[in-house]
Order: sequence, then structure tokens, then C-alpha cells
Amino acid sequence: MDRIPILKMGPFLLVTIQVDMHDRLAMMLQEDLTGRIAAGGATGVLIDISSLEMVDSFIGRMLGEIAGMSRILGAETVVVGMQPSVAITLVELGLSLKGVRTALNVERGMELLRASVDESEATYGGPGSQR
Amino acid sequence: MDRIPILKMGPFLLVTIQVDMHDRLAMMLQEDLTGRIAAGGATGVLIDISSLEMVDSFIGRMLGEIAGMSRILGAETVVVGMQPSVAITLVELGLSLKGVRTALNVERGMELLRASVDESEATYGGPGSQR
Repeated sequence: MDRIPILKMGPFLLVTIQVDMHDRLAMMLQEDLTGRIAAGGATGVLIDISSLEMVDSFIGRMLGEIAGMSRILGAETVVVGMQPSVAITLVELGLSLKGVRTALNVERGMELLRASVDESEATYGGPGSQR
Repeated sequence: MDRIPILKMGPFLLVTIQVDMHDRLAMMLQEDLTGRIAAGGATGVLIDISSLEMVDSFIGRMLGEIAGMSRILGAETVVVGMQPSVAITLVELGLSLKGVRTALNVERGMELLRASVDESEATYGGPGSQR
């Protein structure tokens, strides 16, 4: 396995992180994801981390970077499926996942994305123009 | 990583296979999946294999078994995202993925599942009663 698959679900892209991330894999994921957003005009990215038992500062930074890159390309990012123990550790370590929105599971993440897309359309008259 | 995450998407369950499968992992996936179908009454299972570069007889049998188990519990299984090279190898090796339906990607797989659920409702008056 040398790439993390990106699944298209309507206007959203779904990534499930199941393997230990390292520099090269994280960089390839960022490249693939930004490429897919640019090519297909996705308005949202869902990143499922339900199989991660630990989120360290490396993963935290990677998630923040993905959210930042996606936002510039007009897509909101929601991190879903975080295990309770991961949330506890994050707070204890003082890692705040700045700029990253979270939701309990994929379904709630999609609701959140739909709501934020609707909102930005109502405010600015079109997707991709937020912020 | 000791478990493959199962994501709920409305009436369907989505599994992305990204790691090398071995006996114990395959058995746990089958247990988790059948448990989730029984608990939540899912009508469809999508298995994404887009990151697999090879499907051998072990994986083929596992996919067939998952489809069989799910069917008994009232859920159809669709395998999605197969790489062209995998399809070529499967045919060359004479592996037929018996009893397993396939679709090009997650979106088409969902369409297929929706169509087959609608059809079985029209024919038998309810999901879970097909075949």
C-alpha cells in the first residue's frame, strides 16, 4: 500500500486513515487530495480517523495543513470518528487541532459540511467563495 | 491498527481495505461487519479495494464470504474501486469472485445498491427478504 485512497461521495471526498502516517505518505495524501479537489471541485473533505489510537503532533499538523490547503481550494474539511481516548490525550497534551473541524462520525460530518456549504452559498452567492 | 473501520453512510456500510489482509484481520472484519449489519439493519455493504494492487484467492474468498454472510442478514454487498490490473489478473488466474457484485466506484456502487433495494422492495414488499 503506497497511497491512501480518496473516495468521491457526491460533492465530498472521503479519506479513511488506517495506517501509520509517515512524511512521504502524508505528503502524497496532501498532493492527491488537493489534486482531486482542484480537478473535481469538491466542496468538502471528510477525514475518518476512527482507527487511529493516537494522534500526535505530526498527525495533528498534517490534519491542520490539509484543512488549510483544502480551504484555499474552496473545500471545508471535517475530521470524523475520533476515539474518546484520542480526544482525552489531545487535550492533555495541549494539542488543539487548530483550524480543524470535527464531528462524531461520517454522517454528522456530512451534515456539517452540507450546512456550511448552504450557509456560504446564502451569504456569498456560491460555493468556493467562502473566506 | 488492529481493526478495519466500518463507516455508516445512511443505510449502507462502507469498508475501505488498505492493509494486507491476514486470517485474523479478515475474521475480525467479518465479525465486526455482521455485528454492525445485525445491530443497525444496514441494507448494503460497500467494500472499496482501490488501494489493493493484487487480489489473490484468499482475498477473493474473503470477499465472497462477506457477501454471503451479509446476504443472509439482508444486506447486499458490492465491491468497488477495483484497479484495471487487478481485474486482468483475476481473469488470468481464473478467479471469478463468485457471488460478489462489483461497481467502478463508491458512487456507482451506491446506485447499484439503491436500485437493488428498491427492486426487492417492489418484488417482495420489504428489504431483507430478497433471495
